[in-house]
Amino acid sequence: MSEPFRHVALIGLGLIGGSIARSLRAMRGTEIRITAWTPDGVDPRSALFAGVLDDAAASPADAVAGADLVVLAAPVGACIELLPHVVEGLRADACVTDVAGIKRSICRAATDVGLGSRFVGAHPLCGSERSGWAAARDDLFQGAPLFIVACGSDTNTARVEAWWADLGAVTRRVDAAAHDTEMAWVSHMPQVLASALGATLADAGLLRNRLGPGGRDMTRLSASSPDLWTDLLLRNGDVLLPALTALRERLARAAAAIERGDAGVIDDLLQSARTWTESDPA
Amino acid sequence: MSEPFRHVALIGLGLIGGSIARSLRAMRGTEIRITAWTPDGVDPRSALFAGVLDDAAASPADAVAGADLVVLAAPVGACIELLPHVVEGLRADACVTDVAGIKRSICRAATDVGLGSRFVGAHPLCGSERSGWAAARDDLFQGAPLFIVACGSDTNTARVEAWWADLGAVTRRVDAAAHDTEMAWVSHMPQVLASALGATLADAGLLRNRLGPGGRDMTRLSASSPDLWTDLLLRNGDVLLPALTALRERLARAAAAIERGDAGVIDDLLQSARTWTESDPA
Repeated sequence: MSEPFRHVALIGLGLIGGSIARSLRAMRGTEIRITAWTPDGVDPRSALFAGVLDDAAASPADAVAGADLVVLAAPVGACIELLPHVVEGLRADACVTDVAGIKRSICRAATDVGLGSRFVGAHPLCGSERSGWAAARDDLFQGAPLFIVACGSDTNTARVEAWWADLGAVTRRVDAAAHDTEMAWVSHMPQVLASALGATLADAGLLRNRLGPGGRDMTRLSASSPDLWTDLLLRNGDVLLPALTALRERLARAAAAIERGDAGVIDDLLQSARTWTESDPA
Repeated sequence: MSEPFRHVALIGLGLIGGSIARSLRAMRGTEIRITAWTPDGVDPRSALFAGVLDDAAASPADAVAGADLVVLAAPVGACIELLPHVVEGLRADACVTDVAGIKRSICRAATDVGLGSRFVGAHPLCGSERSGWAAARDDLFQGAPLFIVACGSDTNTARVEAWWADLGAVTRRVDAAAHDTEMAWVSHMPQVLASALGATLADAGLLRNRLGPGGRDMTRLSASSPDLWTDLLLRNGDVLLPALTALRERLARAAAAIERGDAGVIDDLLQSARTWTESDPA
């Protein structure tokens, strides 16, 4: 049984960082020390965070001083830039984890600053189109699937994985490249589609309140944060492009079939999609 | 104040027809007579429908005999084929309405069989990926937007519109061509996209349970009935194709921008989509 972390430092207090802070406080009360720094100019000393944070910091190095676990909960680009400053103030035995939607670049950056096996990447599948502290909840991780990307030592990996599981996440270990490829298909491609659909309807002058329930589902992700997603999509471009190509070929075949009135091709498309949903136990 | 209909005949007892039957029975009790015939081989005399239907019929003509309102609640192709048989048994003063997701072809068919202004087209926006009697509910139309397509007489239109409003629908009048064009963009294009996404993920061997909440929203419509949708998409192809072309151009531009690492174009895409969702009061 590994020792629980006693002082958690958060870099970022948005939907994910804020939910970690709220969950830890709700679960561990005064047993846990929580410090934070945010890269977006929000002052963690403000009344907004009263009762949740123990202390706020003027810099990333200050925030992590004394912490035995640091959670990078800012957009992945900011995390990569901040890593050298985080390492500056870090205890020699502290672990670092993160929540980024892609894992190859952050793992490389962690290796580059010498974190080695003390960095244990994580990606909880509970992001949404909502963002910021206001959207944070103390039960966000309950039952949420969470990828763990180990960079070395089993001891550190097990300790960080157990910490995420304590927050309610259902963990699964995966390597960084396999993670990024899977995300390209199941998360990044759907995001591009939702935004493309929203932008296309906007161009056509059709407001969202004209959509039925199905169209609303299809455009919910349109509200996602461009700040977060532009960088994510570009960084994962090498594995995202083959996914987009496969989808665009499907759409091209569908459009050609509609143009020539080919019911067989359209029926096959709808049937394959339906059969696929039927394989889902949920 | 127009006279309420006293005997409603349903052609089809799926999600929509079944929900009409359940709603009428719940609201009007024994004051209303409900008869039905289904084109899919389900016997309306079976125990399944006990307590909801007054009588079942061996043919469409039998079902509509004596009815003052007939609701065509089968797939649009079946409705068009059935119309001559429906007219056969129809009272001279009866009105006919329908629920098809496209309106030009059914209005043309109604004119062709001589229904004239006695046909008042309708399209409730409350279909879903679920289908069949098992999915029917007595509150399906509560608050549901519903298009009314008038073919002539204001008296018949007002009477049928009031009947739909009684079921809880929020009606809006529109002409058939405008309706079909709008549906191509806000309903049929999203359906094609959801099915293309589901089929693409199926081809890649990724099960639906690997998706996060956003990906699940994006593929919920994948479960839609091919029987219903293939015909609908092909019949509305002339106005659906320009919508699909606009979407495919958006996707092509996004893929090209990702390939060359152009953050500006991706940020614009995500931003336009987000701004569009913010215009939605819901």
